[in-house]
Amino acid sequence: MTSKDEFSTWTKAIQARTEAALDQWLPPAAMHPARLHEAMRYAVLGGGKRVRPLLCHAAGELMQALPEVLDRAACALEMIHAYSLVHDDLPCMDDDALRRGKPTVHVQYDEATALLVGDALQTQAFVLLSEPVPALAAGQTAALVHELALASGSLGMAGGQAIDLESVGKRLTRDQLETMHRMKTGALLRASVRMGAGCGRALVDDEAVALDAYASAIGLAFQVVDDILDATTDSATLGKTAGKDAANDKPTYVSLLGLAEARVLAEDLRRDAHAAIREFGSAAARLRSLADLVVDRIN
Amino acid sequence: MTSKDEFSTWTKAIQARTEAALDQWLPPAAMHPARLHEAMRYAVLGGGKRVRPLLCHAAGELMQALPEVLDRAACALEMIHAYSLVHDDLPCMDDDALRRGKPTVHVQYDEATALLVGDALQTQAFVLLSEPVPALAAGQTAALVHELALASGSLGMAGGQAIDLESVGKRLTRDQLETMHRMKTGALLRASVRMGAGCGRALVDDEAVALDAYASAIGLAFQVVDDILDATTDSATLGKTAGKDAANDKPTYVSLLGLAEARVLAEDLRRDAHAAIREFGSAAARLRSLADLVVDRIN
Repeated sequence: MTSKDEFSTWTKAIQARTEAALDQWLPPAAMHPARLHEAMRYAVLGGGKRVRPLLCHAAGELMQALPEVLDRAACALEMIHAYSLVHDDLPCMDDDALRRGKPTVHVQYDEATALLVGDALQTQAFVLLSEPVPALAAGQTAALVHELALASGSLGMAGGQAIDLESVGKRLTRDQLETMHRMKTGALLRASVRMGAGCGRALVDDEAVALDAYASAIGLAFQVVDDILDATTDSATLGKTAGKDAANDKPTYVSLLGLAEARVLAEDLRRDAHAAIREFGSAAARLRSLADLVVDRIN
Repeated sequence: MTSKDEFSTWTKAIQARTEAALDQWLPPAAMHPARLHEAMRYAVLGGGKRVRPLLCHAAGELMQALPEVLDRAACALEMIHAYSLVHDDLPCMDDDALRRGKPTVHVQYDEATALLVGDALQTQAFVLLSEPVPALAAGQTAALVHELALASGSLGMAGGQAIDLESVGKRLTRDQLETMHRMKTGALLRASVRMGAGCGRALVDDEAVALDAYASAIGLAFQVVDDILDATTDSATLGKTAGKDAANDKPTYVSLLGLAEARVLAEDLRRDAHAAIREFGSAAARLRSLADLVVDRIN
C-alpha cells in the first residue's frame, strides 16, 4: 500500500468509528423528547468531513492515547462543531438553507427546534467529556473539558462568530481578519490537536510548542481554503451555499488578498504546519497528511 | 436577631457575593469582542433572585464546603440559568420583551447577539467549573461538570423546553406536566443542591437520598408557584410579562388543577421538602427557609 492509500484507509476508518461513536453517544431518536433527539441526530450524523476527529485521533496516536478515549474527545469536538453550524445557519445569523447537502435544521424542523438542538448539542459535548473513564485520570478529564470550553466560548469560537457578525460590510485589516478566524475556526481546530494529545501521555515542553505551531498553521489554513472554496466552487460540490461571503459582503482572505495571493498563503501555512512537526519524524505522518488534506480539499 | 432576620441577612450576603463573583468571572465589557461581552454581562448581572446560588450555598454549608468553592458552582449554575432565559425570550421561542424588569437581550441588542450571548454563557459556565481549584479534587471538579451538563441538556432543562414547545395548545395529563417541569426547571434546581453538596465532604447514602427528596420537592414547588404567579400577579411585580401562559395556551398547574388546588399542591411540596431534611436538624435551617422562600415568594 502506498502511504497515500494507507492515509486514505485510516481516514475512512476514523470517520466510520466517529460516526458509530456519535450514534452511540447521542440520545436515541425514540427517547423523549423525541423530536429534539431526532433533530440532534439529523444535525450530527451522516455527513461532515470529521476534520476535528481526524486531528484529534492523529495527535492522540502520536502521544499513545487509547482509540476508545480519543473517540470520546473526538465526538465532543464534533458535537460542538455541529451545534455551531446549526446556530450559524439560523435566520438571525447566516440564514442558510443548505448544509452538508441537506436542508438545514431550522428548514427541516423549525427555528425553535434548531435553537434547542444547538443548545443541547453543546451540553451533550460536556456530558460526554466529563463522564468518568477508567483510562483517564480525573485531572485529564477536567483539563479536556477546560480546553474544549475555552476554545468554544466568547474568547474562541462564539467570540469569532460575534466578530464575524460585526464585520459585515466592513474592510478589516489582515490582522483583524486573522484574529477573527483564529477565534471562529482556529480555536476549535487547535483544541482538536491539543485534546487528542491530552488524552495520551504528558507532553514535554518542546512537543507542546510543536503541536501548537502545527495546530495554529492548519487552523488558519482551513479558513483561508474555506474562503477560496466559497469564491470558486459550486454549491453542489460544497454541500452548502457557495458565494455566500461575497453575497453577504463579508471580509475574506480572497477579498483582502485576491485569489492568487490567498492560494500562496494556504501553501505557506501548509509548509509551516509540516515544518512544525518535523522533529516527530515518521510518527507524525498522519498529522502531515492532514495538513495536506486541509489545504488540498475540494469541499 | 430572629431566625427570619438571620436568614434574610444571609440571603442578601449570598446574593451580593454571587453578584461580585459573576462580575469577576464574566469577561470584562471592554474585552474584544466587546459587544458580546457587554451583552453577556447585561444578561447576567444586576438582577435575578439567585435562587440557584442560594440553594447551592445552603446545601454546601451543610457539607462543610468552602464558600469560595461554592461561589464557583453557584456562578456556573446562574450562567446556565441566564443563558436559558436569553434563548427562551427569543422571537422563535416565547418572544418576550421584558425580563427582570429590563428589556430582554434581543430587544436591547439584537437577535443574533442574543443567540451568541446564550451560547457563550453556557460555555462560560463550563470554563468556570472546569478550572483547577486547589480546594477541590480533580474528581470532584469532573463530577460537578457532569452534574451540571446532565441537568442542562436534552434529558434536563433543554429537553423540558422542547416538551414545553410541543405542548402549546395541548391538554397534558398531570404526569406529563410534572415530567415537563421536572426537566425544564426541576433538573437545574436539583443540580444546585447536589452541586453545592458535591463541593463539600462525601455524602453518606441517607444524606444523598434526603437531599434529593428535598431538591425534588422544591424543584416542583418552584414551578407550581411560577404558574400561580403568572396567573395572579402583574408584570411590574414579576419583572417579566404576566399572564403569558394563558395567552400562549400553555398547560400549567393552574389550568390543570385550578388556582385553589395548585396552592394546596405548593403547600404539600413545602411540607415534603421540610420533611425530607428533618434528620439534618438545625444544620439544615437555611434549606428549610429556602423551601419557604420558594413557596412564599411574590415574584
